[in-house]
Amino acid sequence: MKLTFIGTGDAKQIPVWGCNCNACARARVVIQSRRQSSCVLLEMDEHKYLLDAGSHALVNQLKPDELSAVLLTHFHVDHVQGLFQMRWGQGNAIKIFCPRDKTGCADLYKNSGIFEFEPFKKSFEPYIINPAQPNFTVTPVPLNHSKTTFGYCLEADGRKVAYLCDTKGLPTDTELFLVRWQPDIVILDCTFAPNSSEETQNHNSYNDVLTIRQRLLQHNVQTTYWLTHIAHDMECYLMDEWSVLPADIYVAVDNKSIHLNEMALSS
Amino acid sequence: MKLTFIGTGDAKQIPVWGCNCNACARARVVIQSRRQSSCVLLEMDEHKYLLDAGSHALVNQLKPDELSAVLLTHFHVDHVQGLFQMRWGQGNAIKIFCPRDKTGCADLYKNSGIFEFEPFKKSFEPYIINPAQPNFTVTPVPLNHSKTTFGYCLEADGRKVAYLCDTKGLPTDTELFLVRWQPDIVILDCTFAPNSSEETQNHNSYNDVLTIRQRLLQHNVQTTYWLTHIAHDMECYLMDEWSVLPADIYVAVDNKSIHLNEMALSS
Repeated sequence: MKLTFIGTGDAKQIPVWGCNCNACARARVVIQSRRQSSCVLLEMDEHKYLLDAGSHALVNQLKPDELSAVLLTHFHVDHVQGLFQMRWGQGNAIKIFCPRDKTGCADLYKNSGIFEFEPFKKSFEPYIINPAQPNFTVTPVPLNHSKTTFGYCLEADGRKVAYLCDTKGLPTDTELFLVRWQPDIVILDCTFAPNSSEETQNHNSYNDVLTIRQRLLQHNVQTTYWLTHIAHDMECYLMDEWSVLPADIYVAVDNKSIHLNEMALSS
Repeated sequence: MKLTFIGTGDAKQIPVWGCNCNACARARVVIQSRRQSSCVLLEMDEHKYLLDAGSHALVNQLKPDELSAVLLTHFHVDHVQGLFQMRWGQGNAIKIFCPRDKTGCADLYKNSGIFEFEPFKKSFEPYIINPAQPNFTVTPVPLNHSKTTFGYCLEADGRKVAYLCDTKGLPTDTELFLVRWQPDIVILDCTFAPNSSEETQNHNSYNDVLTIRQRLLQHNVQTTYWLTHIAHDMECYLMDEWSVLPADIYVAVDNKSIHLNEMALSS
């Protein structure tokens, strides 16, 4: 199981248009420190899946017939905008698994092109989303966000990854599920720096991440955290305060991969 | 007055994801033959305006404070998607002039960021959209499309440009306006090749362009046409049949400019 972070920024991305904070100024010069909107590529046994599709560059990185399915956490623009062009592609139909959401985003339902939207019917139940890969299951878990949003607990051959983005804290049932499930890796929304002036009630701050970690530790969940959905002020915080991070917390970076078999980071 | 075509493709763009037609295969290799979605940059006397915002790359090409206003023809994704990130920029408020449209696109109205939407109240009336440039007027003219859509007749210091995208044919009143107005340049939707299997009732084919030109010629409108919103099958047609184009019809290309004072093309 290989996970490649394609986009690890929030809706604003990094650099933010017109912003000259340290993180944004650096990202204009040091291209590898830029952050696109949310997207992860999951590869297993020659099957490829997307977790969210916030990157516009996906059309250059993937071919339609090599994509087995897409998992959408929710229908905010920064998680689906890569689909606006991809839907007009040529190839076999591609299933998009998602929460049930009446409106979707823009005209994606009306003009779905090669995509077939398939909302998950129940949370906390494991689904086989690709009949050609029955050893891979996806369990949708509710998150706390302004739109109906699912996190996804991915399991294959005993490896367990929880992708929890976008969320502010965790619903109790989702926390209890994680305690039972015992993930190897948690990819977690960490949009805001502590005491950020831009903080909202829809996303974790770094302090929320520490609280989630502490609560799970108290229930003996030993896991590794990868922070994502990083906004520019969280990036500034990390530039100054990276040494405060506990040893089990890493910061995801665009275009870097985690190989779950050896648990190593590669580019 | 300088017009730079930033995006001259349709919603699918060129190359279409997964397509191996001649136009798409060439565009993967010959980068200058790619076409992004609709966007034109208009520059006059150090003022900059956008006509549509279908390109994702605008954040890299412009700074917030150097953009005087945006003119949106309508709220389809391929004409507004560049705004999804730009709205979160930092700088003074930027006005977006547009048709009155209840729903807009995705959550642009709800989360408008630094943009202020200002629908035009009347068609066929000239508006000064930038008080700092009173010699520049914009006259909205209705077009034939699946969503409420305006073309824009732009006039400054006697130079007249009609931007007519997206449309299938022209409403009679718009045609009559053009006959009276006598544009120097018409930038015109030409999505489909003649007899294209992909043709819809929302966009011009090349044959529709010839009909519009013929009708305007009969009313003594001597102008120069620049074709835009080119889909991949129209591009294939042009690769084979470019020599059939009359001398007053040009094909717009991404990243090329027209200087209206000398009426010359530059890169």
